[in-house]
Amino acid sequence: MSENFTPTIGIVQRTRKSPYFDATVRAGVKGFSVYNHMLMPIFYDSPQADYWHLINNVTMWDVAVERQVEITGPDAHTLVQYMTPRNLSKCKVGQCKYVPIIDENGGVLNDPVLLKLAENHYWLSLADSDILLYAKGLANGHGWDVEITEPDVSPLAIQGPNWLPVAQKLFGDWITKLRFFRFKEVELEGIPLIVARSGWSKQGGLELYLRDGQYGTKLWELVEAAGAEYGIKPATPSTIERIESGLLSYGNDMTIDENPYEVNLGKYCDLDQEADFIGKEALKKIVAKGITRAGVGLIIETDGEISNQEFWPILNDAGERVGKVTSAVYSPRLKKNIALAVVDSTYTAVDTQLKTETPTGQIYSVTVHKLPFI
Amino acid sequence: MSENFTPTIGIVQRTRKSPYFDATVRAGVKGFSVYNHMLMPIFYDSPQADYWHLINNVTMWDVAVERQVEITGPDAHTLVQYMTPRNLSKCKVGQCKYVPIIDENGGVLNDPVLLKLAENHYWLSLADSDILLYAKGLANGHGWDVEITEPDVSPLAIQGPNWLPVAQKLFGDWITKLRFFRFKEVELEGIPLIVARSGWSKQGGLELYLRDGQYGTKLWELVEAAGAEYGIKPATPSTIERIESGLLSYGNDMTIDENPYEVNLGKYCDLDQEADFIGKEALKKIVAKGITRAGVGLIIETDGEISNQEFWPILNDAGERVGKVTSAVYSPRLKKNIALAVVDSTYTAVDTQLKTETPTGQIYSVTVHKLPFI
Repeated sequence: MSENFTPTIGIVQRTRKSPYFDATVRAGVKGFSVYNHMLMPIFYDSPQADYWHLINNVTMWDVAVERQVEITGPDAHTLVQYMTPRNLSKCKVGQCKYVPIIDENGGVLNDPVLLKLAENHYWLSLADSDILLYAKGLANGHGWDVEITEPDVSPLAIQGPNWLPVAQKLFGDWITKLRFFRFKEVELEGIPLIVARSGWSKQGGLELYLRDGQYGTKLWELVEAAGAEYGIKPATPSTIERIESGLLSYGNDMTIDENPYEVNLGKYCDLDQEADFIGKEALKKIVAKGITRAGVGLIIETDGEISNQEFWPILNDAGERVGKVTSAVYSPRLKKNIALAVVDSTYTAVDTQLKTETPTGQIYSVTVHKLPFI
Repeated sequence: MSENFTPTIGIVQRTRKSPYFDATVRAGVKGFSVYNHMLMPIFYDSPQADYWHLINNVTMWDVAVERQVEITGPDAHTLVQYMTPRNLSKCKVGQCKYVPIIDENGGVLNDPVLLKLAENHYWLSLADSDILLYAKGLANGHGWDVEITEPDVSPLAIQGPNWLPVAQKLFGDWITKLRFFRFKEVELEGIPLIVARSGWSKQGGLELYLRDGQYGTKLWELVEAAGAEYGIKPATPSTIERIESGLLSYGNDMTIDENPYEVNLGKYCDLDQEADFIGKEALKKIVAKGITRAGVGLIIETDGEISNQEFWPILNDAGERVGKVTSAVYSPRLKKNIALAVVDSTYTAVDTQLKTETPTGQIYSVTVHKLPFI
């Protein structure tokens, strides 16, 4: 496909504007995707300019597309535990946990961050799939006493090494004591929020879970104002930075066709825990049989700056397909083309040499690299 | 938002290219949306040019985004019946049925077309939500013996008054005997298909359910060639024609916040049937209490050619909110601005006068109109 092919995106109610949409348009957003049935900004100046500002300074992101599934009721904990192999028995109120959601076969359906707001009161902050419907189906079938809804909650992220002074200006000094993957309910000039130390980058920062969409513009402008002296800029989750950092994207680096072990999420699976969860027997069988694939990093040996729009097959010397490139990008810090991939276990050792083929038939040599890259 | 704001769409594996993607790019596609985690073409020349070609001649559409949920196994019929208030007890093999899918509260989750391929072998041809996950949750919870997958099936539609000669050229004269909302399994030059008399327009035509994505380009080219002498053109589901025709779009004209009765789908609900379905008690209570809203058509009294990107509130004379515009468009055949809406029952009589307010604060008078418009 020509590099000059820049199709536009259609906008209707179904594609849902976020509470920050108007603010992002004023801020100069130039591209969108759709994620959880909502418009997601994907770049402002350019992917590389936005990336450098994240790496060197501080950025603010409309990530309202991280929709929540809110689960309450006497069986809320039972339902939430049932959807994930992660052991939630010690999860505290005010804590976040990264939880792979799996199906009856152990296939990954989503990889949300769980927030425990209170006993039997949870949010699942979602990647791109309708876990609300999964939860509703399970609850009805198992006869669990729960309420399951998508609340009016829309995250705004502040990410980058200078996130802390911006946060202090917004919230005060208590924010310096908020531990990683913990959150707190606060009000900011009358705006109800949950503030969490989390975010889809390794550069540090917060996610502000706005709990009333009417304040979208107001919250955006407060963050913008607080960040002005630090040079805060609007940006988006950075494809470049998150691949360098080894952060997996559901729908790209893992799908329903992979189990958690095959995408390096085995450490989140407690098969010995007392609680029941869907897919427990399936995962036990999978582990007993042996894991045959795993996630790796790759250096892609080519000049220029690559990217991919779909899986690229990975081939061994005999030309057999042994894996797939899932997310590829040029890394300005490494000055190399890099990728995340899933390959057969035989080929996962660092420095293994393989090949990949692009949709236009180009063959590149690739070398297995440790994760994260940086 | 400025009319010159034409943001681009980002393409990654998560947004999944359809088997027809390359063919649509060659055919000149200019815009996409994302629907069921797949790229959906939304225009070629212009929405109005594509519309006239649908109305007057024949068009071909990449609607691969109508993903299927395939359900098989001894409890397949039980599960499928459980998800919808529609009575499926008399559904025949080879038949299509339009089936609202609802949750435990009677809220609409999707409005697929069901295809019965064999006893206990169904496809649900989806609107935009992950019913696969709903089905998996229900099946696991109820302990039903089923397999639930998303098969490699991708519909290509032929729609327009001249669909029949194109179809005869492709398939032969038997196609003239295929009844509306019936389907047949066929092979076209080695390409496995299900051919259905269906499609999201009132102009007539077929949907070719391609059962092996590697043949996407080949099938597209066969249809293009067969249609050449009839002037077939690539197009997309037409926002204009489908609103004129009163066809509802899930996520626009109905959401989880509406029950079937509130969007004129009560005729698909059999509350007296013997079979159990989720939400049966909820719908009985709703009907007993009385339906308080309904779907209507509106004429919007303004010059120019309108469209909407989100709900517009509908107000009565006292300025109270009494409904919402869901899908608005200029109708070239009626030479009027029209819309689909949901309004409180007090206001559903044809010729009722109301007002609507756009996001930029403009107030238009609106008049209730019968559905369909044409």
